[in-house]
Amino acid sequence: MVVIVAKSIVKQGKLEAFKALAQEMVEKSREEEGCITYQLYQDIHNDHVMTFIEEWENMKAVEAHQKTEHFERNVPKMKALRHPSSEMTLYKKLT
Amino acid sequence: MVVIVAKSIVKQGKLEAFKALAQEMVEKSREEEGCITYQLYQDIHNDHVMTFIEEWENMKAVEAHQKTEHFERNVPKMKALRHPSSEMTLYKKLT
Repeated sequence: MVVIVAKSIVKQGKLEAFKALAQEMVEKSREEEGCITYQLYQDIHNDHVMTFIEEWENMKAVEAHQKTEHFERNVPKMKALRHPSSEMTLYKKLT
Repeated sequence: MVVIVAKSIVKQGKLEAFKALAQEMVEKSREEEGCITYQLYQDIHNDHVMTFIEEWENMKAVEAHQKTEHFERNVPKMKALRHPSSEMTLYKKLT
């Protein structure tokens, strides 16, 4: 299993636009083969910090995800709505 | 529900010591009331990046967790083993 934590710091005034794209990513990604969970979270102390926590069966599923139509259409738009300091980390489970 | 993502960048040579403390935190925290899940992950590209992803029923459970004997004993030791740039974020679920 591969877990992805993708943390975005959304630019001021862009939160609603970001959320709309994120919502579509949640709905479509959950339908993909190899997607175990795909959740969106908001920092309780800063509503402009939005983080996806995703569980994928393996790297093959992650790579297929990154070639989907919705990924290629939405992710560049989301990148434009967030600060460059946003980060994505791929993890393996230890416990 | 409150989700905590606690990312630690462990100092060189301190990984095994950090893992031992982390393992105890996983075992004991899972027994706490209000703990839904408590998992430890390792960055697949950098084995010194270790992240807890925790799900708690509510803030009351988080606050109780932070007063437990194992938290008060282990967390200061873990802090000494990691870089100051480590971070902890509290989230609410949006989807």
